[in-house]
Amino acid sequence: MAQKTAYNVAVVGATGAVGQKIMQLLEEKNFPINKIKLLSSKRSAGKKVVFNNNEVTIEEAKPESFEDVDIALFSAGGSISKALAPEAVKRGAVVIDNTSAYRMEENVPLVVPEVNNEDIAEHNGIIANPNCSTIQMVAALKPIKDAFGINRIIVSTYQAVSGAGAQAVEELKTQSNQHLNGEEMEANLLPVSGDEKHYPIAFNALPQIDVFGDNGYTFEEMKMINETKKILHDAELSVAATCVRLPFFTSHAESVYIEVEQENVRVEDIWKQLENANGVVLEDDPKTQTYPTPLSAADKEEVFVGRVRRDIDNAKGFHLWVVSDNLLKGAALNTVQIAQSLIKNNWL
Amino acid sequence: MAQKTAYNVAVVGATGAVGQKIMQLLEEKNFPINKIKLLSSKRSAGKKVVFNNNEVTIEEAKPESFEDVDIALFSAGGSISKALAPEAVKRGAVVIDNTSAYRMEENVPLVVPEVNNEDIAEHNGIIANPNCSTIQMVAALKPIKDAFGINRIIVSTYQAVSGAGAQAVEELKTQSNQHLNGEEMEANLLPVSGDEKHYPIAFNALPQIDVFGDNGYTFEEMKMINETKKILHDAELSVAATCVRLPFFTSHAESVYIEVEQENVRVEDIWKQLENANGVVLEDDPKTQTYPTPLSAADKEEVFVGRVRRDIDNAKGFHLWVVSDNLLKGAALNTVQIAQSLIKNNWL
Repeated sequence: MAQKTAYNVAVVGATGAVGQKIMQLLEEKNFPINKIKLLSSKRSAGKKVVFNNNEVTIEEAKPESFEDVDIALFSAGGSISKALAPEAVKRGAVVIDNTSAYRMEENVPLVVPEVNNEDIAEHNGIIANPNCSTIQMVAALKPIKDAFGINRIIVSTYQAVSGAGAQAVEELKTQSNQHLNGEEMEANLLPVSGDEKHYPIAFNALPQIDVFGDNGYTFEEMKMINETKKILHDAELSVAATCVRLPFFTSHAESVYIEVEQENVRVEDIWKQLENANGVVLEDDPKTQTYPTPLSAADKEEVFVGRVRRDIDNAKGFHLWVVSDNLLKGAALNTVQIAQSLIKNNWL
Repeated sequence: MAQKTAYNVAVVGATGAVGQKIMQLLEEKNFPINKIKLLSSKRSAGKKVVFNNNEVTIEEAKPESFEDVDIALFSAGGSISKALAPEAVKRGAVVIDNTSAYRMEENVPLVVPEVNNEDIAEHNGIIANPNCSTIQMVAALKPIKDAFGINRIIVSTYQAVSGAGAQAVEELKTQSNQHLNGEEMEANLLPVSGDEKHYPIAFNALPQIDVFGDNGYTFEEMKMINETKKILHDAELSVAATCVRLPFFTSHAESVYIEVEQENVRVEDIWKQLENANGVVLEDDPKTQTYPTPLSAADKEEVFVGRVRRDIDNAKGFHLWVVSDNLLKGAALNTVQIAQSLIKNNWL
């Protein structure tokens, strides 16, 4: 079949924070679109938005919505993906899913294009976009692993509220104002909207992202652990994670400890790998206080790495500080990049 | 010599954040004071404050200030301690120093009373109070180390701005208001007042506390590494630290990974040690979302521990979340507790 030059693209969850970033990126990157279909829940259907200078009416997402759709980008929550992604596939679309619904399924590739692009070719209709904290970590670690091997990862995260959605952003603003005005802070949402207790996030740190599993780890922590092994194709890799929600709006930061396999690796060797890596920017010069922060990485597409240093006791141990915009590389951008790769490599 | 029943106590840095907390604790704990002497820089001298219902005039700290002083509590910065602590000792006072000036000196005990109280007996006039982040970590780990051995610690910190002084607290407030009002944030102080560059802390995270050393670690990180080994009397212990300043006012939190020496240690065994430990409170129940946070630990004297869980890959590895008020147990309270122990054990 001759390859198309423009595609019918559906965005499911078009009114959400990630959905809107996806639409913005499709425009900015001149994604080859024949027809765009913006889908949402019944509640948001009927709204009109401007896409590529045309007014588009948002429609309610239904199984029939996916007739004639080539690529469907889902970011409307796990239950919508579970219900509608198979319907989209049945009608011939390739789904790129931003939820955790299919990530650990064996026949679903879990992809960060800089890391395991070739896995896209193996798809059976659904390709999963990894968790935001996982994406930026594996993007930074892949070049190091390829060059020197890595057998141990211990990460502590510093995660922005926007990862919990637009309402969490509002909650941080409201609580910050309340506290600065000497009022009691009202907590209605975080750490997890569906969980029993809510704690203030403003001027605080919450060591819970997503609900707890029976093993004492949160789902967010287990996502980082399991997804990292799957994306890096290394079931033997040791991965530990502690995930913490913090009072900033955009970008996740990560304090990452790794142990490499090779002897005599120097900080300079790791710098060199990071400098040459796709999608990664090295910002690391203690002498000039150069390191990435959540604010400096916001609205940027790359994964930023700083504070690379050798462990004092373990010659094979290294510490890194990894920061990226959680809504861009951590979500919308990675989704669009998968779609671009699908087309470029004729893997639709 | 018969022991006194009340002591002449000097507080050096009486107008600072820690100095004020020290005075408050001396009052609250009915510290046996004969005469209090409040000392400060020339600039603050002459101010009057109320202590134990008496008005006390703050005096400029000079060598002669320490005549007749039994116990001198220093928290006015390293250069003041370097200049005046020896003068106080020469005049017969025992100095408890809250700065980093003497911490790593061989003949100066570095003490957390719950951990190495007996070291106080070895003093030669000066006892050092450890770094705030170190104190809470060793308080939580000592009972675990005693019971099961620990040979590896990797910590990532989440530190409050009050650790950088009262001006940093004001900077966080000002910047937060600026950002919430859509104004540009002005950064004049953090991460380190004396360093070249300043970055906003509000709605951000700064992976720099204190200045950088030549090895790429900050002084704060090296303090945690070196002080932990000294307090725990274990030069062979592997310790790694990444220290991050965050936009909250009070309490430091720490994501701590440890490796124990004994086989077959269970989370329940660690819980039991923490439950029975002096000055430590276990707050750990994922089912009820129970864990400490900076806000929940603020204004409390104990070190709070939650999120205890076994590493998934290393049966001897455990993760903990340790939180404590950085101005209380991290500074003023630990200082007062050392003074109490000096008296109680007749170690003056």
